[in-house]
Amino acid sequence: MNARPGEFELIHRFLAPLASKEPGALGLSDDGAVLGMEDGDDLVVSTDSLISGVHFLPDDPAPLIAAKLLRVSLSDLASMGAMPWAYTLNLALPEDWDVAWMEGFAGGLETDQALFGINLIGGDTVATNGPLSFSLTAMGKVEKGRALRRSGARQGDGIWVSGTIGDGFLGLLARKGGLKELPADDREFLISRFQVPRPRLDLGRRLTGLANSAIDLSDGLVSDLGHLCEASGLGAEAEGGLVPLSPAARRALDMGLAGLEGLITGGDDFELLFSVPPKEEAELAAWSLTDQSGSLSICKIGTIKAGPGVRVLDGEGAALDLTDTGYRHF
Amino acid sequence: MNARPGEFELIHRFLAPLASKEPGALGLSDDGAVLGMEDGDDLVVSTDSLISGVHFLPDDPAPLIAAKLLRVSLSDLASMGAMPWAYTLNLALPEDWDVAWMEGFAGGLETDQALFGINLIGGDTVATNGPLSFSLTAMGKVEKGRALRRSGARQGDGIWVSGTIGDGFLGLLARKGGLKELPADDREFLISRFQVPRPRLDLGRRLTGLANSAIDLSDGLVSDLGHLCEASGLGAEAEGGLVPLSPAARRALDMGLAGLEGLITGGDDFELLFSVPPKEEAELAAWSLTDQSGSLSICKIGTIKAGPGVRVLDGEGAALDLTDTGYRHF
Repeated sequence: MNARPGEFELIHRFLAPLASKEPGALGLSDDGAVLGMEDGDDLVVSTDSLISGVHFLPDDPAPLIAAKLLRVSLSDLASMGAMPWAYTLNLALPEDWDVAWMEGFAGGLETDQALFGINLIGGDTVATNGPLSFSLTAMGKVEKGRALRRSGARQGDGIWVSGTIGDGFLGLLARKGGLKELPADDREFLISRFQVPRPRLDLGRRLTGLANSAIDLSDGLVSDLGHLCEASGLGAEAEGGLVPLSPAARRALDMGLAGLEGLITGGDDFELLFSVPPKEEAELAAWSLTDQSGSLSICKIGTIKAGPGVRVLDGEGAALDLTDTGYRHF
Repeated sequence: MNARPGEFELIHRFLAPLASKEPGALGLSDDGAVLGMEDGDDLVVSTDSLISGVHFLPDDPAPLIAAKLLRVSLSDLASMGAMPWAYTLNLALPEDWDVAWMEGFAGGLETDQALFGINLIGGDTVATNGPLSFSLTAMGKVEKGRALRRSGARQGDGIWVSGTIGDGFLGLLARKGGLKELPADDREFLISRFQVPRPRLDLGRRLTGLANSAIDLSDGLVSDLGHLCEASGLGAEAEGGLVPLSPAARRALDMGLAGLEGLITGGDDFELLFSVPPKEEAELAAWSLTDQSGSLSICKIGTIKAGPGVRVLDGEGAALDLTDTGYRHF
């Protein structure tokens, strides 16, 4: 059994090193952080909570839990076109937390901090008799007045998404022991898409000044497109056949293991959905985007319309039945 | 039984109104908040978590829980000399939360937002099978380079505290059903001091450019003075007899219900402790400070010394035994 350190040692040993590159973090040894802002930047702030058994499984590897925690908020910064800067972290730890777990967790944060250029600047660590849980508040910067918003969509805008849709939904099914008929490689790919979001930060930054609106896909394509439309006072029509799918998701669909309705209403994709006026489409088409595993595609799946509501059409022009669009976690 | 709204309605009904005065909150309807910073200000960030059964009792009135949650972080801003600006709020709600409770909680936040000039700008609401818990991240502003720090104390500085010490410790005892020998008025006063901190924001702002170091008292006077000394690479000697006590605490001491050791090692005072060079003492003495219940006193209780460690002397010049300086919550 590992002897567990108290709060001060925990901060000193595992968390303070994560704050060493940001002088304003004051080594996590003061009452707060003191950060200088550049003139001409706006501050973007987003916060998320993750709870064991709800947003991740207790036996998920600690570095992956850390990555998901950080990346969920980074995805929010991406959707606003912001550049990552700093974050605070609140941990509620059950009595039985162990040192090896904490090492893995801090290691996961360290890796992603370097990858995304963000630093820990503060936090709070408390004991709980409930499940392990986290809150993370991420701060980013964007050129003054240039943040992407949900509310800027205009009638006639093309609706675009990055990457592939539905992998998060299928990854959760696979993580819960489902989709056994799929090849092991596919299941692994899908689980990793569920466990480790890929925040589209570069894409988000390139979209500032070009897209009229943007949102990240956490609740599901249909729900989040609905949020964007509601914020913009408009509606949307999308073509189900244009929704980009990964080869694994395509196979799951072809094998009858899932329906398109599930893929477009399931959550945890963490892709960007954005609306772009037609005159900018040529510009978009010329972009060459990449992500960790190769090229990142973006594609147009529909159009912003006048009326309220979101319709997704099947191949025959009929609307899909999306009455159950609530994404279920565990 | 009240019908409980879902997450979106909860945000719309109870939380979005708290964000209505800060345009950058975007009505809590976007992926994050977008805030403009004034040129010439530093951003101060502090975060705290409170868990039911640990930091407050499940049957504490909802408006008081809200007040404590916000004020604990405001006290951190005060200790750095910052002016409150904006906060994010993460709620983990058990299944059985009810609408009346949430109304009281939101009402408590609303009252304090107006009192302290701070606005909700974002948050996250999740379901938990654990206890009700909160994380709050507060942001403040301070003139560039002027934030008070723990680490600036110098040898020979006077050690000062605001208000009275030990009320939080005694308030917790009373809240748990103890101190029955005290008059009811005293018990009520002490419980309110424990439940509702009074962040010393005006004092903190006045101390910028004058105090060499500052910290807020959350862990207890001795512990927090120790943190300040450690951050400054110095030590401290204080006179137990100079520690300011409320009339209620004085009575508890005189009746033998508590010892001075308990009062100066117990937490939750949320007063400011700060170090000031002797040449500024005349300036301090001329200040007239107020708080909600009248005048706010500040007084000198000791001196910053060269050596490491904190000593508190009794009336005969002997050091008090403070071996058990860990503050116990519930």
